[in-house]
Amino acid sequence: VETLATTRADCVALDAADPLGPKRGAFELPPDVVYLDGNSLGPPPRLARERVQQLLDREWGTGLVRSWNDAGWIEAPLRVGEKIARLIGAAPGEVVVADSTTVNVFKLLSAALALRAGRRVIVMREGEFPTDGYVTQGLAAMTGAELRCVAATDLEVALDADVAAFCVSHVDYRTGEMLDLHRLTDAAHRVGALAMWDLCHSAGAVPLDLTAAGVDLAVGCGYKYLNGGPGAPAFCMVATSHHERLQQPLSGWMGHAAPFAFEQGYRPGTGITRLLSGTPAVLGIAGLEAGVDAWQGVDMVAVRAKSLALAELCVTLVDQRCSGLGIEVVTPREAARRGSQVSLRFADAYPLGRALIARGVIGDFRPPDILRVGLTPLYMRYVDIYDAVEAIHDVLTSGVWRRPEYAVRTVVT
Amino acid sequence: VETLATTRADCVALDAADPLGPKRGAFELPPDVVYLDGNSLGPPPRLARERVQQLLDREWGTGLVRSWNDAGWIEAPLRVGEKIARLIGAAPGEVVVADSTTVNVFKLLSAALALRAGRRVIVMREGEFPTDGYVTQGLAAMTGAELRCVAATDLEVALDADVAAFCVSHVDYRTGEMLDLHRLTDAAHRVGALAMWDLCHSAGAVPLDLTAAGVDLAVGCGYKYLNGGPGAPAFCMVATSHHERLQQPLSGWMGHAAPFAFEQGYRPGTGITRLLSGTPAVLGIAGLEAGVDAWQGVDMVAVRAKSLALAELCVTLVDQRCSGLGIEVVTPREAARRGSQVSLRFADAYPLGRALIARGVIGDFRPPDILRVGLTPLYMRYVDIYDAVEAIHDVLTSGVWRRPEYAVRTVVT
Repeated sequence: VETLATTRADCVALDAADPLGPKRGAFELPPDVVYLDGNSLGPPPRLARERVQQLLDREWGTGLVRSWNDAGWIEAPLRVGEKIARLIGAAPGEVVVADSTTVNVFKLLSAALALRAGRRVIVMREGEFPTDGYVTQGLAAMTGAELRCVAATDLEVALDADVAAFCVSHVDYRTGEMLDLHRLTDAAHRVGALAMWDLCHSAGAVPLDLTAAGVDLAVGCGYKYLNGGPGAPAFCMVATSHHERLQQPLSGWMGHAAPFAFEQGYRPGTGITRLLSGTPAVLGIAGLEAGVDAWQGVDMVAVRAKSLALAELCVTLVDQRCSGLGIEVVTPREAARRGSQVSLRFADAYPLGRALIARGVIGDFRPPDILRVGLTPLYMRYVDIYDAVEAIHDVLTSGVWRRPEYAVRTVVT
Repeated sequence: VETLATTRADCVALDAADPLGPKRGAFELPPDVVYLDGNSLGPPPRLARERVQQLLDREWGTGLVRSWNDAGWIEAPLRVGEKIARLIGAAPGEVVVADSTTVNVFKLLSAALALRAGRRVIVMREGEFPTDGYVTQGLAAMTGAELRCVAATDLEVALDADVAAFCVSHVDYRTGEMLDLHRLTDAAHRVGALAMWDLCHSAGAVPLDLTAAGVDLAVGCGYKYLNGGPGAPAFCMVATSHHERLQQPLSGWMGHAAPFAFEQGYRPGTGITRLLSGTPAVLGIAGLEAGVDAWQGVDMVAVRAKSLALAELCVTLVDQRCSGLGIEVVTPREAARRGSQVSLRFADAYPLGRALIARGVIGDFRPPDILRVGLTPLYMRYVDIYDAVEAIHDVLTSGVWRRPEYAVRTVVT
């Protein structure tokens, strides 16, 4: 019933009753902004400033090189990995923070090809987030692996005894559609292939239980729903059962069994540590840890419930207020099939998005015609959705989005 | 003459007359520390705190996702690369900031194998910094490339028509020995191979003119002499002449010709940008840019002159004060053959190093028996060297280094 609220007062009441409402205070958000883009870059958790300050002053400044030991810098990739493991339902020791999603896709698909030696096919979906495809194209060119790209609906059919692994986003970055992680993981296993999930739009967005699903490999992003800061390091997950035979070609000193013995030959470290390559990005990890710590004590079931309520509200309001204005909801209306975003289609979505940003309503554009509304229950209010849809209505009905300045492309869309 | 100073008063006088002396004020150093480890982790430049603060508050906090355009985040890898290019004598457009040294070695050696298709040998030196070797072993296992490891003195002999490239540290991390960059680059070119230099202990340490030397490829570290902060991103350099045919397998969206067009096929961007893989580590790059900016207006010739004077002072004092104590200088005594460190050999260098750290004299240990004294003329004083050698003398003569607690290994040596 609460999701049928259509007045602003109703939304204010929903916010007042929201058990996650107080969590908004853990984030720094400008007062004049409706932020719909936490699925692209989460806002700073208040903890981040304090942590980074401490890192600069006490750890880097006073401790200097001693802080590798004394401030726990060297353990940070595993320590923060453990915290992320709890958020995504992975077991202790299965997650490590390292590099970028792109580099981690390369590492894990290389590992998959080694774990399934003799199989050369990697299955991906058409319309996958580009960097996953680009780096897999690079890997395929280097190794002779074959890339099999199919529509999302054909993923199961594409799996056969030649497939080493699939690598697929759990939630589609454009439409917000969520695939059935359990079902596709099972389908991979039935043909002896590995299931590798890109969780960039899932971690911190939807409840996950990778262990229960039997997921083999996963990568994910630190700067979206985890609020780790711009360009925060990414994470990798590998199921414990694969640790013993795990190998990957970006074998750097931090993945060595004894990094500070300075041996000449590579000896892989135990378990997930062998996914580490170079020196950990301490500053970036500090931001990420602050972001992940903001999730402490948060019930993911409550987050999902609010996310679905925000989505219902958004869909309902768009249907009511924007009918006949050329804009439509493309995210599946079935709750179980969507992640934590609502995507709107509008032929001129780019200038519409710019006009909204000029009003302080910050979503983002994805080509060719998608305007995304990221749903981030830790700090998003029901009134934010209300105000956003009102802004869309006003910008569309007034025609202000047609101003020439909004058509001028920025570097980053 | 000034390098023969042997009293503390002489050193104080040298500091007072040092044209680089005032630069020390640009760094935050604890008052009770003699810092000899700037070749492992440089101290924070004062600019870093201000920049990172601004990034957290105004850019990430207020600007949010808009800062990719408005605060120049998206251009940061190239912008900071340009600044590093000036420090290492590379041309504009030849340097970009990305990932870690380890990951960059993988990218550039992959690129070298592609640029020299048909050649499968990579030449490295024995005793190379481990991560370079480890990741090249990973690359070799993946591609069938052959790794030819030889003593530093045999590098020229090891070059033949099968060699795609050598990858060698310009300055040895243990001994501080500097190789002849021009001569070895020429030797590679004579057999049609590429010269790839690891500049981790050269950038910001010694004058470099990569263009004049005809260097093809280079990688380097942001957190040592460049003072970019713990785990700061690394950099890659590729000579312009190779840009057109440049390709590397970690082909991510930031290396795409149009990252925000979200195309499905990889189209490499122009020039050096195709070495970018994932989303840039904005927080880490901000620290690095502060470090690099602290080099503005600094004359590298003056830095080298002071580095050599500090080295002479260190060698002279160790000879005078520590003779008969079992410690010896292993860095070449010939100025042209050393980088910006003095390495001391002592059978029990590990506990000696710990005992020195307990006294606030922070150098580092490299197995099996090396104590390193990094020379960092931007903030190091002649009295630091004096005090360090006195501390070594005292710790050795008193036998305090034999205390059992100093033998206990820390995680990071």
